[in-house]
Amino acid sequence: MPVATPHLRVDLGRLRRNVRRVADQAAAAQISLRPHAKTHKSLEIARLQLAMGARGLTVATVGEAEAFVRGGCTDVFIAYPLWVDDARAERLRDLAEQARVAIGVDSVYSAANLGRRLGGTGVEVLVEVDSGHHRTGVRPKETGEVARAAARVGLPVRGVFTFPGHGYSPGAAQEVVAAEAAALRQARESVTAEGLEVRVLSGGSTPTLAASLGGAGAGGSAHGVNGVDGTGGVDGVARITELRPGVYVFGDAQQWELGTTEPDDIALTARATVVSHAGGRVVLDAGSKVLGADRAAYATGYGRILDRPKARIVSLSEHHAVVEWPGRRPRLGTQVDVVPNHVCAAVNLADSMWVEEAGRLRPWPVAARGLNS
Amino acid sequence: MPVATPHLRVDLGRLRRNVRRVADQAAAAQISLRPHAKTHKSLEIARLQLAMGARGLTVATVGEAEAFVRGGCTDVFIAYPLWVDDARAERLRDLAEQARVAIGVDSVYSAANLGRRLGGTGVEVLVEVDSGHHRTGVRPKETGEVARAAARVGLPVRGVFTFPGHGYSPGAAQEVVAAEAAALRQARESVTAEGLEVRVLSGGSTPTLAASLGGAGAGGSAHGVNGVDGTGGVDGVARITELRPGVYVFGDAQQWELGTTEPDDIALTARATVVSHAGGRVVLDAGSKVLGADRAAYATGYGRILDRPKARIVSLSEHHAVVEWPGRRPRLGTQVDVVPNHVCAAVNLADSMWVEEAGRLRPWPVAARGLNS
Repeated sequence: MPVATPHLRVDLGRLRRNVRRVADQAAAAQISLRPHAKTHKSLEIARLQLAMGARGLTVATVGEAEAFVRGGCTDVFIAYPLWVDDARAERLRDLAEQARVAIGVDSVYSAANLGRRLGGTGVEVLVEVDSGHHRTGVRPKETGEVARAAARVGLPVRGVFTFPGHGYSPGAAQEVVAAEAAALRQARESVTAEGLEVRVLSGGSTPTLAASLGGAGAGGSAHGVNGVDGTGGVDGVARITELRPGVYVFGDAQQWELGTTEPDDIALTARATVVSHAGGRVVLDAGSKVLGADRAAYATGYGRILDRPKARIVSLSEHHAVVEWPGRRPRLGTQVDVVPNHVCAAVNLADSMWVEEAGRLRPWPVAARGLNS
Repeated sequence: MPVATPHLRVDLGRLRRNVRRVADQAAAAQISLRPHAKTHKSLEIARLQLAMGARGLTVATVGEAEAFVRGGCTDVFIAYPLWVDDARAERLRDLAEQARVAIGVDSVYSAANLGRRLGGTGVEVLVEVDSGHHRTGVRPKETGEVARAAARVGLPVRGVFTFPGHGYSPGAAQEVVAAEAAALRQARESVTAEGLEVRVLSGGSTPTLAASLGGAGAGGSAHGVNGVDGTGGVDGVARITELRPGVYVFGDAQQWELGTTEPDDIALTARATVVSHAGGRVVLDAGSKVLGADRAAYATGYGRILDRPKARIVSLSEHHAVVEWPGRRPRLGTQVDVVPNHVCAAVNLADSMWVEEAGRLRPWPVAARGLNS
């Protein structure tokens, strides 16, 4: 029985190639890779990443951490400034008995709260730094104050982290990676001034990955020239020691349009069917409940058609994508592969991704789907 | 144990009041109500709607139809121009043995395909008409041609339907309801000219509901003045006989901003926690993976705060909502209720909605979540 459309398809060859390529590049650059698993939410893909050398996983929520630890991962970083109440503290203590666990913190107030509930449990913290995205994270110079507050209440400080989300803009990568490096360097100085060690400087994202790996790191070549090693360095110079990209495993239409993924590397699509020619249009059965409704300012539509780079999804509702299709329209019933704008959102809508192996379609569960808390 | 944030909360009193009010209004207007269950995807809410007089349910996919028929609903209309292959035909035939089933069709080509696979099975069709939304649906004058094609291949034609989606615009409702009525009237004329009966003229949506129920129906008062009854009418005049609103059960920020829902009637929110004050901001843990990423052109943000009408969600990522909060910021750890822009998208992200009954929180499963095919 064929799998009904719309559904998500994974190209296993491309997926493996993407995972391998970034693992090799990070290894060559002597930077740890801790991929963000919120993109795929899949135990199969997490195992692939770990087998190819990732040192652990990044996740966004305690629920995701639980799913991946249950699936065998022994090292998770919840890169989020969690507010921890009694119930969440209990879950984190349970996790810390099974795996190496770190969480984010971005205020003195929150550090004090964490200390009351998690001090001495082995849960480590990284202080979140705002490197220009202006979402969460302290100003670099305030990092030491938060680190000191955490250390004082029994929370080991592993280091500092940032998310360079302002790199999601055309042509921004080099400048953003420089800002990220500067922020992490300042943060490190601020923490070491408190007499605390900074073992990890963590950053990165898929659109800035090439810039990070290409040597635009903080104050030195990413390849370790000048003897900088991330934990100390020459003349107080530090470079990023850990990268946390997520989307690179699949790619998506955002990366395609940012120029950071080639269409030939895109490993996840929504298989859809042409259901209507009304008004001369091409309407597909993959809508926002399959693709997600993300549409960045730079996006040229609500997703792309993998084999038709000139086609554009000009409107999207829950179960309809209206496509401007150049040339001859595909017949009703034709199946086409749609590249979602933001793959993390699309995966989180599906219970399974379908993977072709040895000529057969197999479902890979989206094990951490919907685990937002 | 409290339910961790972020999670969806349903106010049962408001929900019941919304369901009751629209049921009463439709009954007073002598218009059938066939609510769209894609909004709530919940057996509990479907049963409430049916108990209060809905004549059946509308759904968007075969998977949703299966879930609601399995849950006891005996009359489903899949308001979608399905492309039916062998596998989907088998599922529809199974459904038709358990319930009254109708589907949409919007081309002669598709009618012929349906006929080959479903002719004589009892599955009925409604021809979809474009009343100005320009998504799917034939032009009104072409309706008869599609109806004839369906009837010829053994598909009973129940009537015609439209979705007035262009009513999702401030101040558009009256004009859109008039256009909807005109399109359905023309469609009816086109079908009856083929010697076929039109038993159902189906339309409606939440933003146009008041206009539909207030008498702006096709060619006559919605209250049945002038003796029009929808199946025939005076001087060839027909009025809408069936309404398919979905969002009215909960309301959402879109309806709030369109002026079609009062904040006091909003029955679903995302309970979120303030997790960061970085940079003086208020950051909540409910992001696009909980609220959805929908943002209509008229929206003032990515969702609203129920008890703070002047607050605005100015940016949204997967696990963060950044709020411009007037006056004194809520402390870290404070819980607030966020109204999603588009409630259908938010519900489809969650496995459960949490309902307070007799002082206890109970999960209502989102039974048809993710059933997009």
